Amino acid sequence: MAEEASPVRFGIVGCADVARKVSRAITLAPNATIVAVGSRSLDKATKFVASNGLPPNAKVYGSYEGVVEDPEVDAVYMPLPTSLHVKWAVLAAQRKKHILLETPVALSVSDLDKILEACRSNGVQFMDDTMWLHHPRTTKMFHFISDPNHFGRLQSVHSTFSYGVTPYFLENDIRVKPDLDALGALGDIGFYCIGTILWASSYELPKTARALHKPTYNDAGVILACAASLSWEDDKVATFYCSFLSDMSMDIVAMGTKGSLRVHDYAIPNQEKEAKFSTSSNSDWVELSIGWAPNPSEHVVHTDLPQEALLISEFARLVGEIKYNNTKPEDTWPTISRKTQLVVDAVKASIDNGLEPVQIQD
Amino acid sequence: MAEEASPVRFGIVGCADVARKVSRAITLAPNATIVAVGSRSLDKATKFVASNGLPPNAKVYGSYEGVVEDPEVDAVYMPLPTSLHVKWAVLAAQRKKHILLETPVALSVSDLDKILEACRSNGVQFMDDTMWLHHPRTTKMFHFISDPNHFGRLQSVHSTFSYGVTPYFLENDIRVKPDLDALGALGDIGFYCIGTILWASSYELPKTARALHKPTYNDAGVILACAASLSWEDDKVATFYCSFLSDMSMDIVAMGTKGSLRVHDYAIPNQEKEAKFSTSSNSDWVELSIGWAPNPSEHVVHTDLPQEALLISEFARLVGEIKYNNTKPEDTWPTISRKTQLVVDAVKASIDNGLEPVQIQD
Repeated sequence: MAEEASPVRFGIVGCADVARKVSRAITLAPNATIVAVGSRSLDKATKFVASNGLPPNAKVYGSYEGVVEDPEVDAVYMPLPTSLHVKWAVLAAQRKKHILLETPVALSVSDLDKILEACRSNGVQFMDDTMWLHHPRTTKMFHFISDPNHFGRLQSVHSTFSYGVTPYFLENDIRVKPDLDALGALGDIGFYCIGTILWASSYELPKTARALHKPTYNDAGVILACAASLSWEDDKVATFYCSFLSDMSMDIVAMGTKGSLRVHDYAIPNQEKEAKFSTSSNSDWVELSIGWAPNPSEHVVHTDLPQEALLISEFARLVGEIKYNNTKPEDTWPTISRKTQLVVDAVKASIDNGLEPVQIQD
Repeated sequence: MAEEASPVRFGIVGCADVARKVSRAITLAPNATIVAVGSRSLDKATKFVASNGLPPNAKVYGSYEGVVEDPEVDAVYMPLPTSLHVKWAVLAAQRKKHILLETPVALSVSDLDKILEACRSNGVQFMDDTMWLHHPRTTKMFHFISDPNHFGRLQSVHSTFSYGVTPYFLENDIRVKPDLDALGALGDIGFYCIGTILWASSYELPKTARALHKPTYNDAGVILACAASLSWEDDKVATFYCSFLSDMSMDIVAMGTKGSLRVHDYAIPNQEKEAKFSTSSNSDWVELSIGWAPNPSEHVVHTDLPQEALLISEFARLVGEIKYNNTKPEDTWPTISRKTQLVVDAVKASIDNGLEPVQIQD
């Protein structure tokens, strides 16, 4: 008889700002709890527990090792600089911890493969922290773009992710430091644009990536803004733009043979509990081409739990299945992460080779 | 003393379907009237007058010459296949007719230059039939993207224009015939995408155009769908997608350093009398990055006259100025047409050279 399921016990490895949001999500998820927090500074870990409403009995460690080695930790959430992912995620997997890894998952697919191989060989679940995939709006949108009568075959998709950062960010944030997050905006937010494009194409890997212009770099050579196109063997084409230097945007404009989809806040909805998108299907001109019929439709999707809590809940469900029912880790999530990273790598290669097209090979 | 202004007298040269819409617009515009209609078939011209509510005393001609040579015609509207534009627009200009030319204006900038030179040397006004530029929504949107505090400098713009055509269209329409409209979708609707991009960049000509994938062609080698990117000397980048094979779309997503603009029906609003767009300015995350503040804003712009009647009204105003006040033709409109055609030519060249970048030179 299976052991009775109790909440999955999370350890937080690193107290980056995003860890506050994810800690709240773990607290909100019904099947997860926080049992340990580690930082390079014990003081920082202690303050993190106190100031973010974490369980007062959560253990605090002045090191990442403390959490990774703690036998009471089932799963680790790792909001570490990307350059540290291989070391700490591999070590955690070896200690049989399930891994929820902050994005971008790795600096290259070869790095990611080390992490995924460690997860595979240790039988632990891997998931990256792409929250929007867990929003019920995303499920509804995917249902629409999978509908052969209302959307048809995907023809084109454009995606953006941008936000205008502060001068302080440009000087100090890990996302612009070559030794910490060398992919800069391409990793931090281009990863999401690429993820939306793969999502819209039902994860059919594109054949070719090409960067569209010389990216904007900081003095250390880290990308602050870039654009690229992806194309497939058939007639599908995708473009994206990501930037730390533009107004906030998170757009998807996806066009199929019979319908189209638009969303403007895919990664983080404007509001936590309700999210919008619009669709158009089989539209035609009215007489004299002075209007459309039918007009596009607006949709609103409500959610009680925010998308990050739904992510935690799904991750904890998979961990619970493994822990209590001896199932195997679910391969869907690492596969999505890996395809995304493959495309990130190809775009980076195209940027580095002077905008020449780069073949994407699995 | 100036002659008293009376409505500008239009002759319609060709009875294509779009001529019905423009004839209605001429009828709606307070300063314009239709005095002649010519078709290769007298019967077709006669039926056109009768079935479209045109003035019963409008003259009908079984030829284009009839209209172009008619001394009572001030201005001609030419909805002819693009391959006929040079011949008929040049002839009309030589007969001192002001020219309202249907889009795409020409098959190449060298063709267009013949038309523009004829207009210049004969002192007649040239304007192409890009209606959306005359909608009050467009003025409001331009005001927004010109605002240094709410939009800032343009960083990226994506534009689409697509509609799913019928099997009949794919077999019979002039827009897919190599001898009539050899640019296919690139001319018919790519022209509009490029126009929006130039508009968003305040008509700063891009430096480079590159096609993004092998276009979809029909059996005769005419483009049915294509995509391209444009880039400037600075960090701006633009992309567009146009297609006869996708659901109807007319999107602009423009991002500046401080704001962004979205419109989904720029070319032909969903509804004739009111049109929407949305803007976002200086948005930031709320605490914990679980939402935006401020949220994007929706705007609705009403218009009593449809955009095509506003175009006619503006064109007729310029013609009236020349006719009654001896002013010179306004150079803004031909300049916009020519810049657009320059970019169309560059995209076509990139398509034809296997997706290599093409420099855009004036």
